[in-house]
Amino acid sequence: MASNSFGLLFRVTTWGESHGPAIGCVVDGVPPRIPLAESDIQPALDRRRPGSSRFVTQRRESDTVRILSGVFEGRTTGSPIALLIENEDARSRDYGPLKETYRPGHADFTYEAKYGIRDYRGGGRASARETAMRVAAGAIAGKILGDGVTIRGAVIRIGGLTIDRERWDWEECARNPFFCPDAASVPAWEAALDDARKAGTSLGAVIEVEATGVPAGLGAPVYGKLDADLAAAMMGINAVKGVEIGAGFAAAAMSGDVSGDEIRMSDDGPYFLGNNAGGVLGGISTGQPVVARFAVKPTSSIRTPRRTVTATGEETEVSTGGRHDPCVGIRAVPVGEAMMACVLADHLLRHRAQCG
Amino acid sequence: MASNSFGLLFRVTTWGESHGPAIGCVVDGVPPRIPLAESDIQPALDRRRPGSSRFVTQRRESDTVRILSGVFEGRTTGSPIALLIENEDARSRDYGPLKETYRPGHADFTYEAKYGIRDYRGGGRASARETAMRVAAGAIAGKILGDGVTIRGAVIRIGGLTIDRERWDWEECARNPFFCPDAASVPAWEAALDDARKAGTSLGAVIEVEATGVPAGLGAPVYGKLDADLAAAMMGINAVKGVEIGAGFAAAAMSGDVSGDEIRMSDDGPYFLGNNAGGVLGGISTGQPVVARFAVKPTSSIRTPRRTVTATGEETEVSTGGRHDPCVGIRAVPVGEAMMACVLADHLLRHRAQCG
Amino acid sequence: MASNSFGLLFRVTTWGESHGPAIGCVVDGVPPRIPLAESDIQPALDRRRPGSSRFVTQRRESDTVRILSGVFEGRTTGSPIALLIENEDARSRDYGPLKETYRPGHADFTYEAKYGIRDYRGGGRASARETAMRVAAGAIAGKILGDGVTIRGAVIRIGGLTIDRERWDWEECARNPFFCPDAASVPAWEAALDDARKAGTSLGAVIEVEATGVPAGLGAPVYGKLDADLAAAMMGINAVKGVEIGAGFAAAAMSGDVSGDEIRMSDDGPYFLGNNAGGVLGGISTGQPVVARFAVKPTSSIRTPRRTVTATGEETEVSTGGRHDPCVGIRAVPVGEAMMACVLADHLLRHRAQCG
Amino acid sequence: MASNSFGLLFRVTTWGESHGPAIGCVVDGVPPRIPLAESDIQPALDRRRPGSSRFVTQRRESDTVRILSGVFEGRTTGSPIALLIENEDARSRDYGPLKETYRPGHADFTYEAKYGIRDYRGGGRASARETAMRVAAGAIAGKILGDGVTIRGAVIRIGGLTIDRERWDWEECARNPFFCPDAASVPAWEAALDDARKAGTSLGAVIEVEATGVPAGLGAPVYGKLDADLAAAMMGINAVKGVEIGAGFAAAAMSGDVSGDEIRMSDDGPYFLGNNAGGVLGGISTGQPVVARFAVKPTSSIRTPRRTVTATGEETEVSTGGRHDPCVGIRAVPVGEAMMACVLADHLLRHRAQCG
Repeated sequence: MASNSFGLLFRVTTWGESHGPAIGCVVDGVPPRIPLAESDIQPALDRRRPGSSRFVTQRRESDTVRILSGVFEGRTTGSPIALLIENEDARSRDYGPLKETYRPGHADFTYEAKYGIRDYRGGGRASARETAMRVAAGAIAGKILGDGVTIRGAVIRIGGLTIDRERWDWEECARNPFFCPDAASVPAWEAALDDARKAGTSLGAVIEVEATGVPAGLGAPVYGKLDADLAAAMMGINAVKGVEIGAGFAAAAMSGDVSGDEIRMSDDGPYFLGNNAGGVLGGISTGQPVVARFAVKPTSSIRTPRRTVTATGEETEVSTGGRHDPCVGIRAVPVGEAMMACVLADHLLRHRAQCG
Repeated sequence: MASNSFGLLFRVTTWGESHGPAIGCVVDGVPPRIPLAESDIQPALDRRRPGSSRFVTQRRESDTVRILSGVFEGRTTGSPIALLIENEDARSRDYGPLKETYRPGHADFTYEAKYGIRDYRGGGRASARETAMRVAAGAIAGKILGDGVTIRGAVIRIGGLTIDRERWDWEECARNPFFCPDAASVPAWEAALDDARKAGTSLGAVIEVEATGVPAGLGAPVYGKLDADLAAAMMGINAVKGVEIGAGFAAAAMSGDVSGDEIRMSDDGPYFLGNNAGGVLGGISTGQPVVARFAVKPTSSIRTPRRTVTATGEETEVSTGGRHDPCVGIRAVPVGEAMMACVLADHLLRHRAQCG
Repeated sequence: MASNSFGLLFRVTTWGESHGPAIGCVVDGVPPRIPLAESDIQPALDRRRPGSSRFVTQRRESDTVRILSGVFEGRTTGSPIALLIENEDARSRDYGPLKETYRPGHADFTYEAKYGIRDYRGGGRASARETAMRVAAGAIAGKILGDGVTIRGAVIRIGGLTIDRERWDWEECARNPFFCPDAASVPAWEAALDDARKAGTSLGAVIEVEATGVPAGLGAPVYGKLDADLAAAMMGINAVKGVEIGAGFAAAAMSGDVSGDEIRMSDDGPYFLGNNAGGVLGGISTGQPVVARFAVKPTSSIRTPRRTVTATGEETEVSTGGRHDPCVGIRAVPVGEAMMACVLADHLLRHRAQCG
Repeated sequence: MASNSFGLLFRVTTWGESHGPAIGCVVDGVPPRIPLAESDIQPALDRRRPGSSRFVTQRRESDTVRILSGVFEGRTTGSPIALLIENEDARSRDYGPLKETYRPGHADFTYEAKYGIRDYRGGGRASARETAMRVAAGAIAGKILGDGVTIRGAVIRIGGLTIDRERWDWEECARNPFFCPDAASVPAWEAALDDARKAGTSLGAVIEVEATGVPAGLGAPVYGKLDADLAAAMMGINAVKGVEIGAGFAAAAMSGDVSGDEIRMSDDGPYFLGNNAGGVLGGISTGQPVVARFAVKPTSSIRTPRRTVTATGEETEVSTGGRHDPCVGIRAVPVGEAMMACVLADHLLRHRAQCG
């Protein structure tokens, strides 16, 4: 598969750099006759948009999406759907320092090592700006999944501060700037992020995404596993360093008499007494909520000077001023939701192909 | 891509069920003129083989691999390499209970939900027996990577017992039945596993795999990321519930002034002062060791009875006697090494294609 | 996609050389619960088998196929189906001359140019022996398509002798050794082939394959066109140099007022007054018979000496004795039918994925 | 592979409808550091552009291409290259008749059958307008192939009139509106096309495309054959019904003692005494010119009324006024060249991956 595409049947190809004229994507494989308009996509983009609180970058991008193809008289036609967002806020400021210097934690060094050239303006292709197209594609994926499937994400940890899962309230996520489901954690997170910003540094986060209403049977054994595809999808989000499904790493500390979710019978069929599986057994969905969790490292662009070298091999220091998220994990929530939606939509089509 | 293949250019397709006549794989895309014989593959299989200690299943399979194509006069020809292992120990015992009952933690229920049919003998396609072919393919991948790349794996945690990384000694891994790099942890692990077995239960584990000598520049941005492909590869191993690269979930608890690995200059070029990145930045290798870690849940087949239902919807209990690993994570070490090798070989070829 | 696989969702991966221990394939993506046994596949192989008349090679291979996986209690499980045929008649004769000499019309030179190594025994991977696996896979594809779809092939030309389409009788194909639908052409073809063999040469052929009962709507626009996939499938058969759909090259000589098939209405819906389209418009099936035609060059292995060079650059001549088909086109009929079946099965699954 | 993408490593994904706001494509897998600007692409588009003579449609589209990503400071970066052309001449005229009526020879009926919806304006996704993006992608492919590879196409037949190959002069192609290499054929073609237009009909054509300078060794055996990929590429062009490589269908009429190209030795290595192979043996390039030929059916949009039915099942007639090519084959020449370039570039990268 080419490096800028994702999915087998519901297939997203993205393009564009942070400071080029535009970013966009092509979404191929969408079933026909699904009602679709920009207004189905824009709200998801707005959730991700910069500038919505002091805890995310203050860059101003309206991120207005346009559908350029694949929709006719308000419905999908089965042809590829091209989406485009103009880059508005690509200030022609001085990128000289970034041109020469490899920023620690960023992809500057590796792009140079691989390609021998890089668009250093704002991170170029490696910029998290690309994730806007994932969110847009995810909105289309959500239309394929239909109303029966609900996908929601939340930040469950920032830096050293983890929520109390007992207080989990999905409604709360919309009421604070952190997508935090635990109201009681919000003040501490505010303080921690304000402290980090004042100290010229940044914090990491853990995000949890849950899909309910997923029918049993999606996924496939061995190399088309639903959980393996979710792992790739989440790990492929910028700055992500770890992915878990269900109990995740905690499963390693369990004994076998508690880890496997027991099964009982109800009038609606078999049900599970727990969800350590995270909704996936043997790579195939169980019908329970599909639960993925991922760790986002702290924003690498910080004011604190860090040691590095230049492209010409001189040792130097670099510090990044400007408009950066103190915790990129926060804005990763809608991106994680979108990736969940894309993976599930792809597997829904794959399942329909093989199993009718 | 079909569900039983893995990789884009170094491409492995596996087939076979636990209790069918044989298992096998086709390895396509191998460069020509690489010396290859069964004796290059068999040692890796022997490391994974059952029956080597009381801590792994006592099934007896010689797992003798045959090369059926793609090698001529001792060298690869560029044509697909077919490998085959006969199933020797597929006892024709009574599978009646498994036929009717969904074992908790296993894929019985989901296979039935997806396909409406399942080969219930020994787990069928979902059996970890399939991983023998991954190990075999990994040995070929290792030949492509060459002597400059070293891939090693270790168990770093069993149940609640984690090694002391200060005592890490790779040599030690070959001296104990756990691939444990910390000699001091071995007695406690022995005791814990003996206890678990006596209690009719099992334990989980965490495995770490490291590749050294990987050149900078492998991988690709956005959807062909090296770490995303590693995540899929590791998560796709049976019983794996979590994957980390470098600092992994610990990165979420770091602040930005420590997480990004700083860079300095040596006579050999830039080097990093840490490896929180796990050898990957922006989806592309840095030249540092590539470090992946994954969590394996406890063996689901245990003697302790667990509540479940039958295919016809009756509540019942199931307990699994017989020859099962008390900790499947142990034998996952060579599998994890193999998946690392396969992903790296694939990306080596992909890099050569685009960047020459 | 790797070079030894074919199809997106119904996916066939073949392996094996002419004179290795065996040839085989893996068929992935097969829907579950389809009744399948060796006896569903063997008849198709028998139609292709050498030695059935004096007009095809007298090599003796029973070509007995074994199913090694993916079938349980007589039905497909959705897991990959591995098929294997042992090579019985790989005589260990003297391949010295072939080792050193590039045979005109064969792939000896190009394999050497590409890989720097080749399995010269009987053509190795380039041998038409590989097509046995296509035929086997085609039999499985046929089971997916079901009884409503009928696929039949015929030789319509050998050398300079073309059938009279007015006399076309499908029943006749089974009564002569040429798959010739025109009984009146048979004696002339016999004479021509006997003459060619006596003269130490060989003849080309044109094959036509037709699929009836294909529903309208299979295929896809632009790059997943049904006719483009058929073109690749047929051109990929050994020795094929041309492919046509429907009117084919004759369409170039038509004027627009006759080429487009007009449409009328019946009680069963719209129908076409002709089939210049060959059952495909805009890459999508029309519901009419899908008609593909392909040209097979004469067998390159002939007794007549031909000028060539050796691997070490010396000019020489080569003539091929032994057991070769005087017209490889004849045995290409079941192969063409199989490729038609594989392409249609793949597109049936693809259509089901996107359009439900 | 998704239906709107083409190629494995040099991968083109196109989108857009004839009368939407724009058409575009994403070209992924391009090696880095290749000089590239719009001015490298525009000339190829201009060759294909409507309105250049009375023998092609008089629609006016400047077809001005913009590069939106993947190029930085005049060189490719290795990131995906997005190209976009605004649709200028999408007149908002009355498409009512096309909305209801299936035009013979067009994809109206099949799109409706597949998707249950279609963008009927100007053919929507099925319009030959899409081929502009193929031409643009082909220009980039040409940059990858480099100056050593020359790709040229010519019309060798219009309707019943075939050129005299003895008079072949590539220079001539640029001097007439038909890409005709035989000056003496031009007047007759002019007359034939004028006649066809006056008669309210159209003519078919045969195009030949040749690539010289292609190194031996590109392609792959069995399912990645260079000729099979070319066949798919050419057959996938709108209105194409047949494809040949080298001698093509004429090979079927040859005997084996003339069809296989003999080989002799020169100071530069082996060379062939003919090119019936069309530069491909066993799916791999020989180093000779790669020669593909394809048949284009007559334009289906003609003034002559044709019988058809409406979407609601009423019998009617349809005739197409307006600005249509009397022979779409003419403008297929740059498209065929582009597809040749794309296939070769893809195989160049694939070869480099496997064989270094």
